[in-house]
Amino acid sequence: MDARSYKLSEIAEKIDGDVDGDGEIAIRGVAGLREAEPGDISFLAHPHYENLLTTTRASAVIVSRSLETKVPIVRVDDPYLGLVKVLSVFYPTGPVPVPKGIHELAVIDPSAVIAEDVSVGPFCQVGPGVSIGRGSKLTFSVYVGEKTTIGEDCYLYPNVTVRERCEIGSRVMLHAGCVIGSDGFGYTREKEIARKIPQIGTVRIEDDVEIGACSAIDRATLGVTRVGKGSKLDNLVQVGHNVTIGENNLIAGQTGIGGSTEIGDGVIMGGQAGVRGHLSIGDGAQVGAKTGVWGTVRAGDKVFGFPARELRLATRIHGALARLPDMLSRVRVLEKKLAELEKGGSIDSSAADNS
Amino acid sequence: MDARSYKLSEIAEKIDGDVDGDGEIAIRGVAGLREAEPGDISFLAHPHYENLLTTTRASAVIVSRSLETKVPIVRVDDPYLGLVKVLSVFYPTGPVPVPKGIHELAVIDPSAVIAEDVSVGPFCQVGPGVSIGRGSKLTFSVYVGEKTTIGEDCYLYPNVTVRERCEIGSRVMLHAGCVIGSDGFGYTREKEIARKIPQIGTVRIEDDVEIGACSAIDRATLGVTRVGKGSKLDNLVQVGHNVTIGENNLIAGQTGIGGSTEIGDGVIMGGQAGVRGHLSIGDGAQVGAKTGVWGTVRAGDKVFGFPARELRLATRIHGALARLPDMLSRVRVLEKKLAELEKGGSIDSSAADNS
Amino acid sequence: MDARSYKLSEIAEKIDGDVDGDGEIAIRGVAGLREAEPGDISFLAHPHYENLLTTTRASAVIVSRSLETKVPIVRVDDPYLGLVKVLSVFYPTGPVPVPKGIHELAVIDPSAVIAEDVSVGPFCQVGPGVSIGRGSKLTFSVYVGEKTTIGEDCYLYPNVTVRERCEIGSRVMLHAGCVIGSDGFGYTREKEIARKIPQIGTVRIEDDVEIGACSAIDRATLGVTRVGKGSKLDNLVQVGHNVTIGENNLIAGQTGIGGSTEIGDGVIMGGQAGVRGHLSIGDGAQVGAKTGVWGTVRAGDKVFGFPARELRLATRIHGALARLPDMLSRVRVLEKKLAELEKGGSIDSSAADNS
Repeated sequence: MDARSYKLSEIAEKIDGDVDGDGEIAIRGVAGLREAEPGDISFLAHPHYENLLTTTRASAVIVSRSLETKVPIVRVDDPYLGLVKVLSVFYPTGPVPVPKGIHELAVIDPSAVIAEDVSVGPFCQVGPGVSIGRGSKLTFSVYVGEKTTIGEDCYLYPNVTVRERCEIGSRVMLHAGCVIGSDGFGYTREKEIARKIPQIGTVRIEDDVEIGACSAIDRATLGVTRVGKGSKLDNLVQVGHNVTIGENNLIAGQTGIGGSTEIGDGVIMGGQAGVRGHLSIGDGAQVGAKTGVWGTVRAGDKVFGFPARELRLATRIHGALARLPDMLSRVRVLEKKLAELEKGGSIDSSAADNS
Repeated sequence: MDARSYKLSEIAEKIDGDVDGDGEIAIRGVAGLREAEPGDISFLAHPHYENLLTTTRASAVIVSRSLETKVPIVRVDDPYLGLVKVLSVFYPTGPVPVPKGIHELAVIDPSAVIAEDVSVGPFCQVGPGVSIGRGSKLTFSVYVGEKTTIGEDCYLYPNVTVRERCEIGSRVMLHAGCVIGSDGFGYTREKEIARKIPQIGTVRIEDDVEIGACSAIDRATLGVTRVGKGSKLDNLVQVGHNVTIGENNLIAGQTGIGGSTEIGDGVIMGGQAGVRGHLSIGDGAQVGAKTGVWGTVRAGDKVFGFPARELRLATRIHGALARLPDMLSRVRVLEKKLAELEKGGSIDSSAADNS
Repeated sequence: MDARSYKLSEIAEKIDGDVDGDGEIAIRGVAGLREAEPGDISFLAHPHYENLLTTTRASAVIVSRSLETKVPIVRVDDPYLGLVKVLSVFYPTGPVPVPKGIHELAVIDPSAVIAEDVSVGPFCQVGPGVSIGRGSKLTFSVYVGEKTTIGEDCYLYPNVTVRERCEIGSRVMLHAGCVIGSDGFGYTREKEIARKIPQIGTVRIEDDVEIGACSAIDRATLGVTRVGKGSKLDNLVQVGHNVTIGENNLIAGQTGIGGSTEIGDGVIMGGQAGVRGHLSIGDGAQVGAKTGVWGTVRAGDKVFGFPARELRLATRIHGALARLPDMLSRVRVLEKKLAELEKGGSIDSSAADNS
């Protein structure tokens, strides 16, 4: 952490914002609205927390351009982006540094090619034929299987497994406990017995990808399972064999993607979503949390529910369901009344029941 | 395991129960109703298994006060609690002991402060500025990042990762493969590219918490992600950044909690439940298994389904759904009949169809 | 990989297939339809990819007996099974070999009994009283707790945890990061405080089972949690305490099985399915992806949805739901028209509304 302080006006300039209030205020750190002390700058990105503006002890707050408030503020187009920038002012280091070089309790195959400025922490193993690019860091108990390649400036957190023959791009972050290149779930039944289909393929993780803690990316049966450039996968995500995930996707926690499914670019998926195998999801589509995708999703579509439907229809159905039990009674009443009419008699207005 | 035996009456006394039958019977161990041999005491807590009372070979069974049966029994208020107590009579040791001291193949930073009676097993790493309280055990390949504090009598199972600057209370159990302090899933989009929001905050796990195998608790963006005293989280649970989980919660396997959500005390959540971010769930609320919570849940409420509704309404809707396809036909019939009436003609009673 | 080539007719013979085209073609490898180069044989098992037959560069393709096409093909009963067989021709080795013997950076208790031809890689720990059968491989950072037994020819991938007193059969594959024998999630409440029920039981994994990456199999409270012979569990699967899983089951990723549930033989479960505790699922049943099972499933039944229903009913309900919002309007119209009739007046055909 950086002990120096900045004027609020200096910070505004660094984050492309405009000060509304006293630009001379000294700012020494960044904190959430609840935790902030005088001297801290905070941020408000979600309207749910707007009321905290009246109680925060922060000396200034980063807000969107449209917000009305009286605390000293820096107005920016995107408060989250403002936060990213102000954090890089105060906390420029990124992940915890790992000592350069190879720890004496790491096991490195002599045929591995390890570039300059690489860190390999204790209890890691680097297999035969592996190559690791400049500046990459293997923190602790990381396994890299034979012939796998890792690009530059990657950061592999503790207890990560990258199996054989995978390709990891540059600036990739693999969070603790994740597994890259596990066998795909492929069997064929011969007389009731599941016979394993050998999983001979591989995994390609492109540049600037993050894979969350305890997530698993299966290798392809043949060919490659791909996670495209800039895509971010959260914790406990499961990606089946031969899946293709395009670029700049955001896939939230506990989501599962069935084998051979193809996902375009710029797709957003909520937590606990599931996509069946052998489907395609178009560019820019949005899949709601907990949604179960059962068929093709076209580019730009928003789907929700289980099984997934177009978002507006899903919302209408959800609203209608609350009235479904009563509707059953109302249909029964209608039937009784109509039966009365059929008989030519008068309608008995007490015909309603609740059964 | 303890080789001595106890009279049934002695056991009843230890677990605040009353013997119904021969108190002189010798009891040498504890086992399930199916596996029990003569000399074992077993227990019946769930009515589903009541029929096993007639076939079990157990010499005695712990049951609730209300149960009618003829086998020798010990009546208690809560058979599960009786089981806990009787297990502590026969198996007093708790988790597998780990040799005291620091294994020669562990890597401990010289600045770490390690209390007496701490065990650090092989292939563990303890980072700079870490403190570990008296009696805590790191079993195998456990990583503790810099400046993290661990209280007394904790038990960290194999392959656990606790990242930097987290606070772990006392008597905390972290099950195998779980990850504490992984980065929150926070990005902001700048021209289609997801830009990472640095996750500068931390995680606080309070006293007497358990975190299940392969679960992940994300660190806060700023501030702290909290798991309150006495809360128990099962396996493969995902807790997002800045979440607050109160005290004495029970959260079953594969549940996910979205970022910044606040959960009260004494909440129970079934398996595979999901809670959206930025919500609040009140004290004593119950969230059903597989339920997807989309809005605030008030204290004491029981919710179920996806999206979640109040339990009774959810149950009524579920029942009504089975009749929905037929109801469509019935409405169609009503419409036809009424159309006939509109025309002034007689009602054709064959108007019903099944389409 | 094997550098020799085979005639297409030779391959057909090895996989019990019939050549349709030139049997003299030389085949040197196996690849997916998209990635194949001349000299490769590929396969088509899923009709979704039939159009790739016109663009593939593969020299031959394994297809089902019924398919019509003009590329050189080998017709077999089951293309997946054909693929298994042809892969074993070209890639006979199976998983990456691990050097025989015990790595100098492994920690083996002197009381462990380790058979011939066992491999124990770096940073593994084998506890007191463990036995490991001939040909089994512990790759990297694998923990085997005291008194656990492992059969012959097992393969334990990196960062696997097998806790104390578990039984692992022969030819079992435990994928990276999985946990066998974690504590069951068992508590009883005493004055609002959750008191842990000690989990004294164990886990038995029978022959020819696979457990996926980052999956967790809890030990029984008392007795045993069982995964039966030949069953295959995918990644991120959670199995609760005292569950019984029969033989030859296929359980896809992120599925969860609640405590004490009993699952028969030959059951298939889709991804993200969930089964409540204390239930039974009969032989040969099929549980759809994302399905939430709330009650008994009989042998051979197919269930789907949340909560689960018989598949055909679930499908009908799903179809009917799309028309539910409109049906509400139609019922309202019927009620208005009928009210008009009750009054004895004429029916106002503009009574329809959309509210």
